[in-house]
Amino acid sequence: MEDQPSLCQVVMRNIKIILEYDGTLYCGWQRQANGTTIQQTLECVIQRITQEKVVIIGSGRTDAGVHALNQVANFLTSSSIECYNLMRGINSLLPDDIVVKGLSEVDDRFHARYSAKSKVYCYRICNSRVRTALLKNYSWHVYEVLDLSHMEEAIGLLIGTRDFSSFCGSNDDASDHVRTVMAVDIQKKRDDMIVVTIEADGFLRHMVRNIIGTLVDVGKRKLSVLGFTEIITALDRAKAGITAPPQGLFLKEVRY
Amino acid sequence: MEDQPSLCQVVMRNIKIILEYDGTLYCGWQRQANGTTIQQTLECVIQRITQEKVVIIGSGRTDAGVHALNQVANFLTSSSIECYNLMRGINSLLPDDIVVKGLSEVDDRFHARYSAKSKVYCYRICNSRVRTALLKNYSWHVYEVLDLSHMEEAIGLLIGTRDFSSFCGSNDDASDHVRTVMAVDIQKKRDDMIVVTIEADGFLRHMVRNIIGTLVDVGKRKLSVLGFTEIITALDRAKAGITAPPQGLFLKEVRY
Repeated sequence: MEDQPSLCQVVMRNIKIILEYDGTLYCGWQRQANGTTIQQTLECVIQRITQEKVVIIGSGRTDAGVHALNQVANFLTSSSIECYNLMRGINSLLPDDIVVKGLSEVDDRFHARYSAKSKVYCYRICNSRVRTALLKNYSWHVYEVLDLSHMEEAIGLLIGTRDFSSFCGSNDDASDHVRTVMAVDIQKKRDDMIVVTIEADGFLRHMVRNIIGTLVDVGKRKLSVLGFTEIITALDRAKAGITAPPQGLFLKEVRY
Repeated sequence: MEDQPSLCQVVMRNIKIILEYDGTLYCGWQRQANGTTIQQTLECVIQRITQEKVVIIGSGRTDAGVHALNQVANFLTSSSIECYNLMRGINSLLPDDIVVKGLSEVDDRFHARYSAKSKVYCYRICNSRVRTALLKNYSWHVYEVLDLSHMEEAIGLLIGTRDFSSFCGSNDDASDHVRTVMAVDIQKKRDDMIVVTIEADGFLRHMVRNIIGTLVDVGKRKLSVLGFTEIITALDRAKAGITAPPQGLFLKEVRY
């Protein structure tokens, strides 16, 4: 009899959500005092529906202006609203630049951040003589013709487990800068769009954008592939290129 | 001697421009008293640069929220600014959701509207269970699963020269509703994006959007392919489907 839960015990469900958002108008993922963020927009909406305080755990932060195709997050709730209805309810209250694409009940042990095995980011570079009007919020416009084969050679050098201090944002608070890059890819789409994809077990703050900024220097032939290797091994942020702007970056997938 | 132009005669150059714009924030192409339009934004900028009154002729109007990948326009100017510098100057003053992709001096007889042989529009339908956050301004979200083969069969029936009164906007001021549809295409991109392309020698007001609204009824199997034929021959706007929303529509090309 002792093993039976008492009737007044609250059963907390662990809910996993998959999100798409246009980061253009947000101050990033992470809740903050000034400015609207994705996290607090979601929390407000879910609280309205479940009628209880909720804390959403994201797989990681995205910066202001950065987009997500499949961000993953989870939260605990005592609400008994059926998953499909919960998803519909949340989507009906969310602004139209955020949407829940999937919602399911998962094991207690699932944690959007700690359970993640890897994350995949892609970055879009619009490499054309004139800027783009339609993709201004969804790509980085680079005027100079980029040498794709040099960029491909350079980005391949990132694969493996190493200290990525050279590509670490100045405000990064991680004590350990060792990460494992599992896969990289660079593709030309249409005439003028270059899409760089990077999968790693984790990313330092601004890591993708700092890699892209440096990679574009390689594409412009301002930096050799050897120079790129030297930057990786220097473990010094000051040696690398600029931080590429946020609007080209998309969190594409989180793998568990 | 009489044939020689006098030195004080003003030589007017006819300038052709190719434009890309994101129509989201504009009240369409056409200059109007209330609200910002693409045409007046361009005219203001060109007037600032050439220091003279200018009238821009577009290949045709686009509605509020409709985008252009390659809209064509022309204007006359006595300015002697070299084409490349003129384009750079205009782009430096235009807002970032409008860009001149090409600028050249053309024959006096070139008229962006009257010289056009055909126009190509494409329309993007996001056919997914949940709405899209990233493409909300660049597609029409349709929830119900669409039958592509039925839509393909129906759209093929539009090819040819006929009276398109059934797909004509209520405010259309064209006296003649006969147009020639030269080519149509329907493609599925990725999992959930349907792109419909229509080329015609001219389009009535709202014609593409009315065709798409009706075509989506065919895709939903609310309307048969035979029913679609009957709508074409009815010459009655009231028989056709809804006007699809503007944000899915792109003026892709103007052919001369």
